[in-house]
Amino acid sequence: MLSNKKKYIVNGNSGIKAQQIQFADQKQEFNKRPTKIGRRSLSRSISQSSTDSYSSAASYTDSSDDETSPRDKQQKNSKGNSDFCVKNIKQAEFGRREIEIAEQEMPALMALRKRAQGEKPLAGAKIVGCTHITAQTAVLMETLGALGAQCRWAACNIYSTLNEVAAALAESGFPVFAWKGESEDDFWWCIDRCVNVEGWQPNMILDDGGDLTHWIYKKYPNMFKKIKGIVEESVTGVHRLYQLSKAGKLCVPAMNVNDSVTKQKFDNLYCCRESILDGLKRTTDMMFGGKQVVVCGYGEVGKGCCAALKAMGSIVYVTEIDPICALQACMDGFRLVKLNEVIRQVDIVITCTGNKNVVTREHLDRMKNSCIVCNMGHSNTEIDVASLRTPELTWERVRSQVDHVIWPDGKRIVLLAEGRLLNLSCSTVPTFVLSITATTQALALIELYNAPEGRYKQDVYLLPKKMDEYVASLHLPTFDAHLTELTDEQAKYLGLNKNGPFKPNYYRY
Amino acid sequence: MLSNKKKYIVNGNSGIKAQQIQFADQKQEFNKRPTKIGRRSLSRSISQSSTDSYSSAASYTDSSDDETSPRDKQQKNSKGNSDFCVKNIKQAEFGRREIEIAEQEMPALMALRKRAQGEKPLAGAKIVGCTHITAQTAVLMETLGALGAQCRWAACNIYSTLNEVAAALAESGFPVFAWKGESEDDFWWCIDRCVNVEGWQPNMILDDGGDLTHWIYKKYPNMFKKIKGIVEESVTGVHRLYQLSKAGKLCVPAMNVNDSVTKQKFDNLYCCRESILDGLKRTTDMMFGGKQVVVCGYGEVGKGCCAALKAMGSIVYVTEIDPICALQACMDGFRLVKLNEVIRQVDIVITCTGNKNVVTREHLDRMKNSCIVCNMGHSNTEIDVASLRTPELTWERVRSQVDHVIWPDGKRIVLLAEGRLLNLSCSTVPTFVLSITATTQALALIELYNAPEGRYKQDVYLLPKKMDEYVASLHLPTFDAHLTELTDEQAKYLGLNKNGPFKPNYYRY
Amino acid sequence: MLSNKKKYIVNGNSGIKAQQIQFADQKQEFNKRPTKIGRRSLSRSISQSSTDSYSSAASYTDSSDDETSPRDKQQKNSKGNSDFCVKNIKQAEFGRREIEIAEQEMPALMALRKRAQGEKPLAGAKIVGCTHITAQTAVLMETLGALGAQCRWAACNIYSTLNEVAAALAESGFPVFAWKGESEDDFWWCIDRCVNVEGWQPNMILDDGGDLTHWIYKKYPNMFKKIKGIVEESVTGVHRLYQLSKAGKLCVPAMNVNDSVTKQKFDNLYCCRESILDGLKRTTDMMFGGKQVVVCGYGEVGKGCCAALKAMGSIVYVTEIDPICALQACMDGFRLVKLNEVIRQVDIVITCTGNKNVVTREHLDRMKNSCIVCNMGHSNTEIDVASLRTPELTWERVRSQVDHVIWPDGKRIVLLAEGRLLNLSCSTVPTFVLSITATTQALALIELYNAPEGRYKQDVYLLPKKMDEYVASLHLPTFDAHLTELTDEQAKYLGLNKNGPFKPNYYRY
Amino acid sequence: MLSNKKKYIVNGNSGIKAQQIQFADQKQEFNKRPTKIGRRSLSRSISQSSTDSYSSAASYTDSSDDETSPRDKQQKNSKGNSDFCVKNIKQAEFGRREIEIAEQEMPALMALRKRAQGEKPLAGAKIVGCTHITAQTAVLMETLGALGAQCRWAACNIYSTLNEVAAALAESGFPVFAWKGESEDDFWWCIDRCVNVEGWQPNMILDDGGDLTHWIYKKYPNMFKKIKGIVEESVTGVHRLYQLSKAGKLCVPAMNVNDSVTKQKFDNLYCCRESILDGLKRTTDMMFGGKQVVVCGYGEVGKGCCAALKAMGSIVYVTEIDPICALQACMDGFRLVKLNEVIRQVDIVITCTGNKNVVTREHLDRMKNSCIVCNMGHSNTEIDVASLRTPELTWERVRSQVDHVIWPDGKRIVLLAEGRLLNLSCSTVPTFVLSITATTQALALIELYNAPEGRYKQDVYLLPKKMDEYVASLHLPTFDAHLTELTDEQAKYLGLNKNGPFKPNYYRY
Repeated sequence: MLSNKKKYIVNGNSGIKAQQIQFADQKQEFNKRPTKIGRRSLSRSISQSSTDSYSSAASYTDSSDDETSPRDKQQKNSKGNSDFCVKNIKQAEFGRREIEIAEQEMPALMALRKRAQGEKPLAGAKIVGCTHITAQTAVLMETLGALGAQCRWAACNIYSTLNEVAAALAESGFPVFAWKGESEDDFWWCIDRCVNVEGWQPNMILDDGGDLTHWIYKKYPNMFKKIKGIVEESVTGVHRLYQLSKAGKLCVPAMNVNDSVTKQKFDNLYCCRESILDGLKRTTDMMFGGKQVVVCGYGEVGKGCCAALKAMGSIVYVTEIDPICALQACMDGFRLVKLNEVIRQVDIVITCTGNKNVVTREHLDRMKNSCIVCNMGHSNTEIDVASLRTPELTWERVRSQVDHVIWPDGKRIVLLAEGRLLNLSCSTVPTFVLSITATTQALALIELYNAPEGRYKQDVYLLPKKMDEYVASLHLPTFDAHLTELTDEQAKYLGLNKNGPFKPNYYRY
Repeated sequence: MLSNKKKYIVNGNSGIKAQQIQFADQKQEFNKRPTKIGRRSLSRSISQSSTDSYSSAASYTDSSDDETSPRDKQQKNSKGNSDFCVKNIKQAEFGRREIEIAEQEMPALMALRKRAQGEKPLAGAKIVGCTHITAQTAVLMETLGALGAQCRWAACNIYSTLNEVAAALAESGFPVFAWKGESEDDFWWCIDRCVNVEGWQPNMILDDGGDLTHWIYKKYPNMFKKIKGIVEESVTGVHRLYQLSKAGKLCVPAMNVNDSVTKQKFDNLYCCRESILDGLKRTTDMMFGGKQVVVCGYGEVGKGCCAALKAMGSIVYVTEIDPICALQACMDGFRLVKLNEVIRQVDIVITCTGNKNVVTREHLDRMKNSCIVCNMGHSNTEIDVASLRTPELTWERVRSQVDHVIWPDGKRIVLLAEGRLLNLSCSTVPTFVLSITATTQALALIELYNAPEGRYKQDVYLLPKKMDEYVASLHLPTFDAHLTELTDEQAKYLGLNKNGPFKPNYYRY
Repeated sequence: MLSNKKKYIVNGNSGIKAQQIQFADQKQEFNKRPTKIGRRSLSRSISQSSTDSYSSAASYTDSSDDETSPRDKQQKNSKGNSDFCVKNIKQAEFGRREIEIAEQEMPALMALRKRAQGEKPLAGAKIVGCTHITAQTAVLMETLGALGAQCRWAACNIYSTLNEVAAALAESGFPVFAWKGESEDDFWWCIDRCVNVEGWQPNMILDDGGDLTHWIYKKYPNMFKKIKGIVEESVTGVHRLYQLSKAGKLCVPAMNVNDSVTKQKFDNLYCCRESILDGLKRTTDMMFGGKQVVVCGYGEVGKGCCAALKAMGSIVYVTEIDPICALQACMDGFRLVKLNEVIRQVDIVITCTGNKNVVTREHLDRMKNSCIVCNMGHSNTEIDVASLRTPELTWERVRSQVDHVIWPDGKRIVLLAEGRLLNLSCSTVPTFVLSITATTQALALIELYNAPEGRYKQDVYLLPKKMDEYVASLHLPTFDAHLTELTDEQAKYLGLNKNGPFKPNYYRY
Repeated sequence: MLSNKKKYIVNGNSGIKAQQIQFADQKQEFNKRPTKIGRRSLSRSISQSSTDSYSSAASYTDSSDDETSPRDKQQKNSKGNSDFCVKNIKQAEFGRREIEIAEQEMPALMALRKRAQGEKPLAGAKIVGCTHITAQTAVLMETLGALGAQCRWAACNIYSTLNEVAAALAESGFPVFAWKGESEDDFWWCIDRCVNVEGWQPNMILDDGGDLTHWIYKKYPNMFKKIKGIVEESVTGVHRLYQLSKAGKLCVPAMNVNDSVTKQKFDNLYCCRESILDGLKRTTDMMFGGKQVVVCGYGEVGKGCCAALKAMGSIVYVTEIDPICALQACMDGFRLVKLNEVIRQVDIVITCTGNKNVVTREHLDRMKNSCIVCNMGHSNTEIDVASLRTPELTWERVRSQVDHVIWPDGKRIVLLAEGRLLNLSCSTVPTFVLSITATTQALALIELYNAPEGRYKQDVYLLPKKMDEYVASLHLPTFDAHLTELTDEQAKYLGLNKNGPFKPNYYRY
């Protein structure tokens, strides 16, 4: 088994010994933030990368008149296979083209596939997955297949499935159970169809939000006897796993891929730097130059938003609770204020906090006419949207995802995506970012599947730093970027292995 | 004793309970990089903040004709005290003015002093210190005094003492033993005079480079029985402490203040963002616009250099060994190359690696005429300067800190500071940055001095994150920055204490 | 008449005397660039501001099944008026809302309306207009009405009319003749219906592209006897006017508003800085970070594109023919190259030249797979798209405005908007920019209409600088920007009138 | 004569015909701003490029004890020549090295020299010059010599002469009359020694500030009969020329090189972008990050200052009187305020207005403690420094060019360079910028000297745009920048000559 794996963790000529990368860095205290989140919202990750783009989906040929539930339809792909349930298998061709386009921007997964031509590190793996179903997920699934795995898949969100992509996967023989606009009942039915199959039992779980894991715990706890590990991508799912672990109920090793460096920096800093502009433009066509903006929260997301808007000529204010992040905001050239100080004068309010009720009704009452309010942080709790559902205020839907909330005196507030995540609702996530996440998921699956007995216990692990570095290195060719190699003398001077890892665990990047 | 301390760790109205901040976060593996560094260079920290500015010093009234060694002079301050040894006690007034100017940019220490008017958390502390002796250090020493401590001080570097400041401290009654241009013998004599005093024995050590600690280990090992802890600021000194700890020879707790967040981000990213421009301008008067620059290394220092030069209109290339940092460079808009690819075309080469022989003679041979070469990383090993000391090359000193190295064909390379750290040699460190470090040192001393028996063992500790946050919060008023406070409801939602710490230990900022 | 006008040229308390602003600065040599442009394309201005946004239009309720030509329908508004021809008068309410939204971002026109409550500087003016018909144009037309003018309007482009807005104008009593998707014949029919009316003869022309002017010259040359002037906004139309003037055939004064400072800087630099990102994102969902981009041309448009992409982390190369602009590119931090040097390596090619065949088939042949090619400059000639219409290449429309052109070896080039202007086709123009243009047009109409006999001859004039400054000042309140006023002493020192103009004509801003 | 010149105006292979560049673009209204400037200050240009760097001079070996006036010394160079008057001819070697270093960054002048090997376009020219005497001026003078001219030179400023450079020029045989620290009387004596020579009469004038021109008008008006033209570089000198012209007293053609594009953009925008940082750092060692700064004036200088400080993390406010520049400031992301709105909160006040009393005593009274005040605009009138010379305020000189002005309550204002130009007093001007100016001067001399009778009248001319473009093109090789050439077809399409000029005169860059 180990020999299978070697090929996937090789960096350059030198060959990284398997042992070097197979130790997860450390157990890790969970970041306790998002504790009270309602049932359904759990399945929407606050991670920006684990989603499709609704707006790009909007351009799809989705307006089929067919209102029959997919569950009630007889469906077969062109090879006669009917072990799937999608909206319309006839849309497969369109979905295939989207997958092919995505492949071009997912170089790392394609590189993994290439290496898989000889050995199959996932041979024998039976992976059940529950993620957003998009072209990028399809590239991941087909890569896992190329690496030897069998997969069954459901959607982690009732709205996010791209029906054409699901159709293309079904056409290619993947048992996919998902469509856009599932009911709550559909949702669990789909998951169950992935898990509860005669003659097939999963030995790996790939989850995004923890619903799949939850279902198996609840309905088929015995399945865990054969399961080698869980790979979980979302903050919410990771949180659930840490809770299970604390309660002593986690019965297999789990890999937290949400907190890997590449994911954090790319999903948050770099991706939001672009998506804040994109989301605002697509919804409002506004001009950024000269606008006054307040950004609540100066974590990675806030940093990205602030940098982008500053570069476009906006005047940006920042609010923070953490003095260290606050000092960073100062040094980066942003006035650090309390929201009340600037709420009357700003043209845009953006929340990036991970917190709740950051923008209250009182703030909303004091905003000036035409002020735009949106959320880049998490969930839909950062702005107290519920407080706007009062009789004296009029809501007017002016465009998709854009509401004018009108005060009795005629003042209008422009609320985007009803306070849900702007970048999920109103912009798209670049494939390149999704590529990083998907590659990390694939490597985590390989690692857990191939780890010798005893390496991982029934606990939650972070990816070994070495793997983070490997994911990064697989993406460098996209930029025609040329890494420098240490000489022997230099490696010795630095006390490093020439192939990494190159940094201590606490390094902040 | 605990009651004494409370005042110093209060944040806002609410009062942080002492217990909350007195647990060092974790023991920590040492970043093993700089292992082989020669004797004397050990006392020059690679930390940018732990130094004075030579160039600003240059403007001082230092050209006294007096060549008598201070050790051979009889010196008394105006109160008749002679327990000190400085260059010229008469320069005290000039030094006092520099100290007063520095006080204005060290708001956090001044705030600590103010709080000390009632209680004295360092009452009974006998601190022996060995650091660069500058106006900023003087503000620290006088703050420690105001907090109740007795101090004796020597210099950690034979060149870095500002004589006027040393004189001002001596005039104020501080036993200071330091002058600019000490011999090796003077250096140790000064340290010894701090430690080896009748009727006074230190119970705290504040070290920068580890020489003082080394001296006590070697000469007065018994002193450690009364010593409550060591606070060490430099990479080198920290490295030595970790070695002692590994070897089981560390006999008191030690606090590594080098790796605190505020220090790392400020000393490296923010400070270098400014000092790279300053250092290049002061030495070469060059124009940045349109210049092609290669920056070797994209850690915090490299990030700062790249951001500044890009903003000034330079075209910047980056070299890296670590794929994660490399990917960051790409996303930040820099072409990632091997040095050889661009060495013929660039106008400036800057090393920021922590490594050795990054720029070799072969590279130097291939550079174009007038190429500027300098080091922002560490030590003087990043550029292989030794390789330029060959007969066929002519060295011409054109300005202070600027050499032209001339090839037989007339090509000139402009070498700055002979390959030593540009920002130490050719620019100044802003007082504000030094303020952050000095405040961290003061808090570390308070923590170790007041910690109840058993809290710290004979090991090396990182500062509790809470303290990092406290240092940051003390510096926010400088920017008229207003921190937001969590509501009870929000704190509960986030699972955080309203007074912090606000982030998990692994948070990357 | 003059007294009517005064109110509109008042700045602050002091009152600018009418005479001060009524001298056009100078006659002006025409910038001869775009000489050979075909018939229909003439009516599409290269000016970014003179257009609607197709993509925002896309969200409209336009999918009426009604295929009857508007010319064949009987239409009446709610007041029984039928002097108009639009797609569907029932869409008026939706259009009115768009107009109201636009009003909120067109503060300067609203300010003009307010001042018009007393006097009517356009009383008696009969304006025939031919422009894009959008919500912003509607705000302009209704402002002209409020200022006392009667207006009749046609569209300058067969695709750009927003039917709902046209309906709203018709409902309000404006004789509008325009719909989306006119035929060539419809186009001229609409123009004719504006001009050829019994009992109404225009005395002012507002044109965008010169088609209206052309039509009157051709069909109703006698009308010019009563026409007081032409205001022309587009490069193309201005070019035609200069040609008429040279040929001695221009029989009324004309105002070139295309070359006013505010228009140039806003339409080009500031607007393109945003629309390049918007256009690329909406069409390709690409990530900008780390991408290599070549921008052909470093005029205002190129400067805007380069600044935005650099800020988003792209690596930008520039090509130029003008050594001054080339040197600016260098100083701004861009490598100046010939297209051939980088064509194999770049991810995006953007043309901003005003030239033709800047990107040739040879370049296209050498681009790498997935390279994106688009035009931000003018017309559709910058990229030699015709050269791609050859049998060996396959075109695949992957999204609206996005074609994959596929080489026999499988290489795909991503061509946006078939080489037409990206920002017209794939992004929107912020209302704020349109506001500047519309205000300039309104002031130019007022100036020409009220100018005393003899001030303007049968020639083409630039707007007086004073008016440019006035347009700017009307837009400052949007940013809560507070202008400083000169003291008497300062004005004397500078030799300036306290109310401007503040700069010599040759000032470059 | 014409044939001599051809070589100097060739661009690439193609050969620009002399006629194409020999028409000055247009007469031009003078920018009337700086009208009331006192006698001596007239000789200090507000142009940043026409000066040496005092601070770099400070590193020179200038502390000669010799207090004898150079006028009283017998001086001979090594060849026995004594037609000069400098401080100390023995410093020639040091000065020569500085000249050689400067040559490396003045590629355009070196290129002109190279082309001069065959023909001598200035053969017969007798140029009398009065400029700052620096290494860069020396490169210009020696270039003029190489082109065939004879030169005699004096200093335009009593402080700005670099004695070593003057010595080097004298040693090489140039009749130079200048030293650092001339008296008023010395100043005119030196000028007179250049002009009033037996057997030598100038036929060209190169002036910087107009003092030389003034002297000849006053003392030797008959000389103008043989003088072919004046080349003037400073705002002040240009102003004087326009006044002479208006008064009908200008008796030879004059070339205004101050307003050429390259000079304006480079001297102001690009140079100040760097020198504001340099000047502030060298004087105060302050940190820019997080500092609040108000910049008065958003012309080219203000734009440069704002861009640099924003990039370094400062929060920048702008004041403006011109609504167009104000709107630019808004779009570039700066809050536009009146000075009073922010004066209490800012850390730095920078004037860039060209105006007087922009910062008044009232403002100074309201600034906060430690506020830094400096002038980047012109002259020393922008800050009302005189108002600080009152008994209740204490001045304390803390460093060279740095005064603390202390209020009775202890508040200190940090005044730089006593309100004179910061970039002249406290930073250096990059050689590259001086190269552009010097090249422009050389080309203007060639143009005027070789112009056929009648091309230029007794008036003030701007350089032909073609020459601006040529100067720019000579500097592109420094950046390894590759200009694109128009194809014949493209040139025809654009209506341009392939060799330029490429833009209409009103183009704003």
